[in-house]
Amino acid sequence: MYYASDNAGPAHPKVMQALMRANEGYALPYGKDDAAARVAGRLREIFEAPDAAVHLVATGTAANSLALACMCRPWETVFCADLAHAEEDECGAPEFFTGGAKLTLVETAEGKITPESLEVALARRPRGSVHGVQPGPLTLTNLTERGTLYTPGEVAALAAMAHAGGSAVHLDGARIANALVAAGCSPAEMTWKAGVDAVSFGGTKNGLLGVEAVILFDPDLSWEFELRRKRGAHLFSKHRFLSAQMEAYLHEGLWLEMAAAANAAAAELAHALRRVPGVALLHEPAGNMIHAQWPRAAHRRLTEAGARYYPAGPLEGDGAAPLAARLVCDWSSRAADREAFIALLAG
Amino acid sequence: MYYASDNAGPAHPKVMQALMRANEGYALPYGKDDAAARVAGRLREIFEAPDAAVHLVATGTAANSLALACMCRPWETVFCADLAHAEEDECGAPEFFTGGAKLTLVETAEGKITPESLEVALARRPRGSVHGVQPGPLTLTNLTERGTLYTPGEVAALAAMAHAGGSAVHLDGARIANALVAAGCSPAEMTWKAGVDAVSFGGTKNGLLGVEAVILFDPDLSWEFELRRKRGAHLFSKHRFLSAQMEAYLHEGLWLEMAAAANAAAAELAHALRRVPGVALLHEPAGNMIHAQWPRAAHRRLTEAGARYYPAGPLEGDGAAPLAARLVCDWSSRAADREAFIALLAG
Amino acid sequence: MYYASDNAGPAHPKVMQALMRANEGYALPYGKDDAAARVAGRLREIFEAPDAAVHLVATGTAANSLALACMCRPWETVFCADLAHAEEDECGAPEFFTGGAKLTLVETAEGKITPESLEVALARRPRGSVHGVQPGPLTLTNLTERGTLYTPGEVAALAAMAHAGGSAVHLDGARIANALVAAGCSPAEMTWKAGVDAVSFGGTKNGLLGVEAVILFDPDLSWEFELRRKRGAHLFSKHRFLSAQMEAYLHEGLWLEMAAAANAAAAELAHALRRVPGVALLHEPAGNMIHAQWPRAAHRRLTEAGARYYPAGPLEGDGAAPLAARLVCDWSSRAADREAFIALLAG
Amino acid sequence: MYYASDNAGPAHPKVMQALMRANEGYALPYGKDDAAARVAGRLREIFEAPDAAVHLVATGTAANSLALACMCRPWETVFCADLAHAEEDECGAPEFFTGGAKLTLVETAEGKITPESLEVALARRPRGSVHGVQPGPLTLTNLTERGTLYTPGEVAALAAMAHAGGSAVHLDGARIANALVAAGCSPAEMTWKAGVDAVSFGGTKNGLLGVEAVILFDPDLSWEFELRRKRGAHLFSKHRFLSAQMEAYLHEGLWLEMAAAANAAAAELAHALRRVPGVALLHEPAGNMIHAQWPRAAHRRLTEAGARYYPAGPLEGDGAAPLAARLVCDWSSRAADREAFIALLAG
Repeated sequence: MYYASDNAGPAHPKVMQALMRANEGYALPYGKDDAAARVAGRLREIFEAPDAAVHLVATGTAANSLALACMCRPWETVFCADLAHAEEDECGAPEFFTGGAKLTLVETAEGKITPESLEVALARRPRGSVHGVQPGPLTLTNLTERGTLYTPGEVAALAAMAHAGGSAVHLDGARIANALVAAGCSPAEMTWKAGVDAVSFGGTKNGLLGVEAVILFDPDLSWEFELRRKRGAHLFSKHRFLSAQMEAYLHEGLWLEMAAAANAAAAELAHALRRVPGVALLHEPAGNMIHAQWPRAAHRRLTEAGARYYPAGPLEGDGAAPLAARLVCDWSSRAADREAFIALLAG
Repeated sequence: MYYASDNAGPAHPKVMQALMRANEGYALPYGKDDAAARVAGRLREIFEAPDAAVHLVATGTAANSLALACMCRPWETVFCADLAHAEEDECGAPEFFTGGAKLTLVETAEGKITPESLEVALARRPRGSVHGVQPGPLTLTNLTERGTLYTPGEVAALAAMAHAGGSAVHLDGARIANALVAAGCSPAEMTWKAGVDAVSFGGTKNGLLGVEAVILFDPDLSWEFELRRKRGAHLFSKHRFLSAQMEAYLHEGLWLEMAAAANAAAAELAHALRRVPGVALLHEPAGNMIHAQWPRAAHRRLTEAGARYYPAGPLEGDGAAPLAARLVCDWSSRAADREAFIALLAG
Repeated sequence: MYYASDNAGPAHPKVMQALMRANEGYALPYGKDDAAARVAGRLREIFEAPDAAVHLVATGTAANSLALACMCRPWETVFCADLAHAEEDECGAPEFFTGGAKLTLVETAEGKITPESLEVALARRPRGSVHGVQPGPLTLTNLTERGTLYTPGEVAALAAMAHAGGSAVHLDGARIANALVAAGCSPAEMTWKAGVDAVSFGGTKNGLLGVEAVILFDPDLSWEFELRRKRGAHLFSKHRFLSAQMEAYLHEGLWLEMAAAANAAAAELAHALRRVPGVALLHEPAGNMIHAQWPRAAHRRLTEAGARYYPAGPLEGDGAAPLAARLVCDWSSRAADREAFIALLAG
Repeated sequence: MYYASDNAGPAHPKVMQALMRANEGYALPYGKDDAAARVAGRLREIFEAPDAAVHLVATGTAANSLALACMCRPWETVFCADLAHAEEDECGAPEFFTGGAKLTLVETAEGKITPESLEVALARRPRGSVHGVQPGPLTLTNLTERGTLYTPGEVAALAAMAHAGGSAVHLDGARIANALVAAGCSPAEMTWKAGVDAVSFGGTKNGLLGVEAVILFDPDLSWEFELRRKRGAHLFSKHRFLSAQMEAYLHEGLWLEMAAAANAAAAELAHALRRVPGVALLHEPAGNMIHAQWPRAAHRRLTEAGARYYPAGPLEGDGAAPLAARLVCDWSSRAADREAFIALLAG
């Protein structure tokens, strides 16, 4: 009964096997391994972007921060959701990698930036006055931090607004596979065809040990990215072990298969939650993340029984009072665990 | 015949098996896994340092840069060897992580900082004048970049000079296992007993996929290190895969066993090299790295036959003219390869 | 009719005369001039803070940014008003000087942070989770950006909340003289007695050419401040010209005399504005700054006649529609100008 | 008898008078004053560079650091003389403003970088390997820190080497007026005609209170410079007082007149020094700075009598032993002082 995050489950056995196979003899270090080139080629195919630059790193924060740093000068501002990972959960990594760029928070509804809220934020940072920071990139997270989905059309609308003001667009795709499965669209439709300039293509939350690809649709940023990656200590000497994970991930659609499994598990869980009296879903879950609330007494029952997830506050107090929680399913989620969870919750 | 670096060989099978075993069920992310605590405990035992803080990262540059950043304010200077990895091979990572500290280069003889050269460097950066950067930490690399060894006594002499001026001491131990095997001393003797305040304890070059431990003998730096690691995007969500590697590495002395194998391979290679007419060793190799020179014609012969290593210049030109090269052996070095190499070299 | 800012008027003749007198013969550079020591001593007396460190810089942004940098590590956050100069008007200088600290915006009412809004902001940044930035200093601006005043009691209440969470308190005193005149309290009462740890003591907006003093009630920060000042290129070789301005400013209460003149001018202007039909004051002006609104037609009349101030939007459009404006009086404000302004406004 | 530096003497009376005149009524702040435009226009004329961007700051370190930051990405390296002000005397300001760029030291002979030493330095930092920092700008100081002069031809030779490797060229002209007088060439000949891309045009050491102009021959860098200046807290609200100084400085050649006076004073002093037994000049002084040595006993005699200058070591010890010293003359140097100095020296 582990729903705290999708970063705590196992890697897929096929990924582990690929890692074993990669551990043969010598391989050129620092991204010069043959598999690195194969992975880049495969991602270009998947994204229908033959000119894109592709680079691997090992953490999502590195992917986001390095990509944003290539798109943002120190005196510019990154526009991000008020609850974005970049704002809340990276200990200031975007500020560190950009050399001190400011994050301008954009209000969200259901976890999503809206055209209205983006307009307000862009208006706060006009270009051209030396007194204020200048407008820099917009970063969107899809799936969002609330488990909701931007459709390609919604991405396109926001990206168009950003581009109109001279801002580039970054997509934090820590859960992009879940988003693509949910949206039923192609990677290209969700990204460059909708105006996205760079993607953090996450794998760690979806069955890898720790690999993310950064895809830069503007290949002119490639060399700067490489230098920033090295300077940020994120270029692996034994890069082949990153390549191997990502190659297995992309092979025969394993990545989408795992995302589909995670999404299906969450859908089942949400379906069951809806039927438990006293439980309310706070957002319509689109992928593998659920936000819901139920009485504190049930939280205590679950926690004592070993269920793991993030409640939004302390479990003490009035047992009847509702308390929100976040539940995330990963590819390895088991039906039996979900049933046990629901049974405990129902009491 | 791969002697370009010890970062291009395979991980040890026991490490791979540990990785497989670690891939079971759920584990708390971000360094809260049980294995992380076990690894820290084990390293405290090995270093006889019950209060030391221990943290894992995935690259040697991250280990060095984060450790130095905790020991150095932006307006201070790091004293390092003129050919240190931190100066030459990290694309400015120390400057990035410290917030712009200056590196003051200390001259080396046989790859080693000497008391005389350190005295000159320390004198260049007096404390107390607001016009100059202030003295910060000294970083030593052992094994050195030339494959030579600082004895514990030599480390102690340099550390005492640094401490006298208020500078802390960092040890870049990318090859510390090779150094310890070569010196025949304990980890404590080579480090804190000799005045070292923090160690980058390398594993990547010695049979791991990519893990280094940072050991801070001053535990008061621990929380700052954790924040810098997170902010630098070097805190792994699936940290258990770092822990598993390091745990296997430390188990029953595997780390020293691998270092001993690498050192022995290099010793054999050096021994054979000495007997080839026209070959000269440039330094007395202490561990697993050799610097030697031989005629360009032999370089060309080797390279064409697939041998891989770093020559110090272009292979073209007068075939009789000597050209230097660096050869590094890793734990998996095979006798047959070495013999083939020598045979080609001898012509 | 210049009310755009108090940074566009002349310096006081006594200040200019002091500058002339300072231009005699040789003086030790870089803050070693005798006058620097006298100024520091005088400010310690005025603030009843015999141990405080005092340093001079030439811009308010330098004073704020350097002081905050000494109170804030890169992974911490500065709590500041949502309309603070540090957030809106310094092109990211606090981020630059701190090495990338995040600014957490605190909501304001009448330009002032309230205990309620500060509580919300502090709760957003709990100490101890490595994922989020850590709480750093609170900075208050007095007079505020809306021309309102924090009383010593209000400062004390906010400072106590900050201190309870381990945060230090900085006062941006670009208009501290105006605030002190308005509050009728002593410098000590407004600052360290109320819990303020460091003050940017502004002079530039109050009759100097360009000098601000930073007063650090914790003298242990003094040397770090000096190093940051030098590294930030804000240590003047001909420092005597900064000292001379500040010495004249503090002599026989000139600074309070000028602030009183500016405040009185604004009070007169506000009094007259209140009597003009169609004019509404948006805040109760406490010092030398007024926010008011009146019909666009009157704005156009004023602007065409040469009046200078910041309207809150474009002057075009419905002449009857009200539009807000900021008016700031400096020490040299003339009654005749104010009368002409009112006459034009009244139409 | 003050020869410690040319930053400790008075400003020229004409400059002070201009400052008085500038203190009339209101002027637009932040560089929008009319005089700022006039000064920029005048410097474009003087440098025969109608498209150059011109901006004022108040310290030489700000001029150098901001200019270099516009020419250098964080992962690049600045090539500078091993005894450059940027390396030795700015507490790491270039590192701070560039975001952590490394300074690569170039050996000097007689205070000057030579084609041979520059070649060595450029070869240390090849372009294209991600492991090393990338080549960035070359900065030259003229007059040098040893009081010697680069001729326009020498500047051109070094600049050509830099440009060949893709590096831009910056001239630290803290004493450019003295250099131009010494070289007898035009500002254009010494700078852009010789391949210089940006100049720190110093005024502070030559009769101003504290103003330097940065001249960017590539006007595309202008907006970045403005943003960096603001973010660095170096944009003055009462900018008119910077403009006024610089305008007076440039009026009717006052700047060259003052530099000529300083150079002549140093030439006289050098001439007299040569005739004192036991005194040896260490470099041939080209401008207003002399490096010479004489017995310690004479140093003690001078210092006790109130002479101020920088000896290269402690005055104690064998009175007959020679000790070097630096002597700098400013525009206000008096013959009587020089005669007294020589008399004391001669004993």
